[in-house]
This record gives sequence, C-alpha cells and structure tokens, in this order.
Amino acid sequence: MYKIVLMRHGESTWNLENRFTGWTDVDLTEKGIAEARQAGKLLKEAGFSFDLAYTSVLKRAIRTLWLTLDEMDLMYLPIVNDWRLNERHYGALQGLNKAETAAKYGDEQVLVWRRSYDVPPNPLEPNDPRASYDDPRYAGLAREQIPLTECLKDTVVRVMPSWDEEIAPAIRAGKRIIISAHGNSLRALIKSLEGISDQDIVGLNIPNGQPLVYELDADLKPIKSYYLGDQAAIEAAMKAVASQGKAK
Amino acid sequence: MYKIVLMRHGESTWNLENRFTGWTDVDLTEKGIAEARQAGKLLKEAGFSFDLAYTSVLKRAIRTLWLTLDEMDLMYLPIVNDWRLNERHYGALQGLNKAETAAKYGDEQVLVWRRSYDVPPNPLEPNDPRASYDDPRYAGLAREQIPLTECLKDTVVRVMPSWDEEIAPAIRAGKRIIISAHGNSLRALIKSLEGISDQDIVGLNIPNGQPLVYELDADLKPIKSYYLGDQAAIEAAMKAVASQGKAK
Repeated sequence: MYKIVLMRHGESTWNLENRFTGWTDVDLTEKGIAEARQAGKLLKEAGFSFDLAYTSVLKRAIRTLWLTLDEMDLMYLPIVNDWRLNERHYGALQGLNKAETAAKYGDEQVLVWRRSYDVPPNPLEPNDPRASYDDPRYAGLAREQIPLTECLKDTVVRVMPSWDEEIAPAIRAGKRIIISAHGNSLRALIKSLEGISDQDIVGLNIPNGQPLVYELDADLKPIKSYYLGDQAAIEAAMKAVASQGKAK
Repeated sequence: MYKIVLMRHGESTWNLENRFTGWTDVDLTEKGIAEARQAGKLLKEAGFSFDLAYTSVLKRAIRTLWLTLDEMDLMYLPIVNDWRLNERHYGALQGLNKAETAAKYGDEQVLVWRRSYDVPPNPLEPNDPRASYDDPRYAGLAREQIPLTECLKDTVVRVMPSWDEEIAPAIRAGKRIIISAHGNSLRALIKSLEGISDQDIVGLNIPNGQPLVYELDADLKPIKSYYLGDQAAIEAAMKAVASQGKAK
C-alpha cells in the first residue's frame, strides 16, 4: 500500500482579490504563507515524511511546497518542477475579477467557464502580453504545447502524462511523494485516480493549503482519502471555493 | 565562453557562534538571510539569469539559494541537491567553539586542523550522535561514503566528481549555472578550476553570501573571476573568515 499527499497552494493574492489566475505567476498572501506553514506542521505531527516532491513552475505552488518542507525539516528533498502540474490556463479571463465578470456576463456564463468540463474561455490572442510564449520557464516547450486557454478536459490531457510517466513510477519504486499544485491540476489527478465522471468532477472543491492524503493499493487505486487538520475549517474552505465567481 | 556563479551560504548561526559546523545542519542568521537576499538583488541588477542551480543537502546553502532565486524571480528553476557539495566534515570538532578549541589545544594546532591540506581532525566515533549514518538524506549512500572526518584533500576528492560528472557537462550544454555551497566545497572547486597548489588553497578565504562570478573559456578554464557588490565589504568579510579560530 502507498500513501501520497496532494496539496493545493495556500491563498494567493488573486484568490484574495477574486481574480481569474490561471498561468499568471502571483504570489501567496500572508494567510497563504501561514496555511503552508500550518500544513507542514500538521504533516510533521501526523508522522509524515517524504522522499520526493512535485510541484508546478508557478511560485504560489512552489512557495507553498518550500514552506511546508521547511516546517518538516525536509529542505534537502529533491523537487521536480513540472509545468504540466500548472493551474488550468484561463485564457482571456486571466486577470479579470470573478464577480465583475459575473456581473457583466451573468452568473450562468461564468459558471459555464468555471465549471463546464469541455468549454474553454475565449483564448488569449497570441500577441497578448499575458501569453506565455516568451517566458523562459517554458523555453523548452514547443509553441503548440503552450496553451492560450484551456477547459478542464485540456488540463486533464496535459496533467496525466506527468502522473503516468513520472509520478506513478516513482510511487511504485517506493518513493514517498508530496504534490503541491493547483485547484484544477489536482482535480485532473483526482478525476483519474477516483474515476470521477466529467459531470461530477467540476463540483469537487479543493481548499487552499490543506494536506489531502490518499492511500493507494498496489495498482494505485484509492483505498481511502482524507484531509489532515480541522475538519470544520476544511468544510468552510471548500464552500468558500464553491461560492467564488458569483456576482454578489 | 561560459559564466558561472559560485556562492558561499550567508552567515549561519554557528558562524556567528564561531563553532566548527561541518555537516551539522544549522540554519542562517537574520544577517545570513539578508546577505542571501542582497546576493539575489545584486545578481538581478547585474543582469544575471540562470537555467539550473546546484546546492548541497544542508539547509544553510539551500536557504541561501532559495532566497537568492526568490529575489531573482527564478523560484521555478530546477535545483539539484548534491551531498557531494556539502561542507568539509569536521570530525570530532563539529559543534566545538573555535576560540575555546584554540585556547585548549593552541592556535597552532587549530590552524593545522583548519588550514592544512591533508591533516583531518580526529574522526567522530561511528556511534557518536553527530555521525550521519541514520540521517535520511544520506540513506542512498554506502556507509563508507559517509565521512566521520575530512581534511580538505578528502573534500576535493568527493566534490570533483560532482563537477566532472554533473556540473561541467551541464555548463558545456549551455546551461547557465549557480552553485550555492560552502567555504571548503567551494575551495575544492576553485582549487581545481584555477590549478591552485595544496599549500596555497588553504589560504583562500571565501566570504559569506557574496556572488563570485567565474568566466570560463571553452575548456572551462577561468578567464577571470570577480565578486559582485561592494569590494570593501568583501575584503572585510574575507579577513573575518581568516581570523576565525584564534583564541583571542
């Protein structure tokens, strides 16, 4: 039996400002920093340790991981930064306020963009300054690998090779793994692990900065999963995620 | 032509307490944190960027690197944690105060331990709690690879395979490299790069937290080297390193 830990980054500045973030490289808030430190304390108290960590190339996930490892006295851990674990790209919505966007287009349209499985928001123009073509962290990628928008289905398609080719073999090799990533890249993973339908996955809300433990059998199928920490606080955090993107 | 940056970690708690540190995993002081941030600012202002970072498995070097990369907005950079870049193991002296040790054994004996090329301090007993056999960060190593003491010559012997097998090929492949390490693992590298004699290398003092730039030719031979930043402060820092370990 294997045990892995998934963690969505702590609160970011754009979580706080209720803006669509996607691939924008925003940092943690003070609350997000505290959440990440607390996650490390919880993991340490619960007796967890790790051999290998995975994260995205976005600093809100990297800083969450660094703070967690610092609290666990595991700063020496090998860290793999994989762009495929990035947040879902939010296309032309990146940078817009969720409530303002809802006021403009209606709650229903925003809910379609946020919560449909296969309808992406409008893409960025290729010459939009928000596009990632010139960002050195993606310099090793082919231009067609760098998205201008994504639906959750697109995110699943790019996240799962990271799992299949890198993470799952490491788990099978006996490495104890922690993954610090994003709401939608973790949805993609959990959809595949749990066999959740296209319809149901969009209703799964993952709170910021809470360690989510998955116990897996020899075939890496989930036996059980649970959040560490205060369960009432986690419930409240999940409801807060669900209510983002409403006009009022 | 290639350009690499070497950096000794910022001031550690045991630098401040003037204790022999070696493989002991002490953290940075507030001053050391500020030095690391300042190093990142200097590198950014001077137009440096990197593709790949190397550090040891000791947190004073790792935190120095993290803070430097944070200031440069390069948190996504791949980081290789290599135990072979660790500080020289200081054997039975680890944890002892340098001035007290000098008062007990004499300045001359301490200078032999600190500054001779091939005379190691007395080794730790294998069952000494300071020995690293049970530390999970060295779990992948054979027992005989884990030192109980080292002279600088021993440190050279373990550092150089990291350069020859990992770092030099990465430089030749065009990667822009930063190495955050320790006084003696950097001495080992510089001895080899510059062809410094066994006698002279022990007199080379590397200040904490100052980026040291090496420009290398196609054969990775140094063309020139220089510290970034305030040259008077760097001179003072080198003198401070040289005067450690005296009784008064």
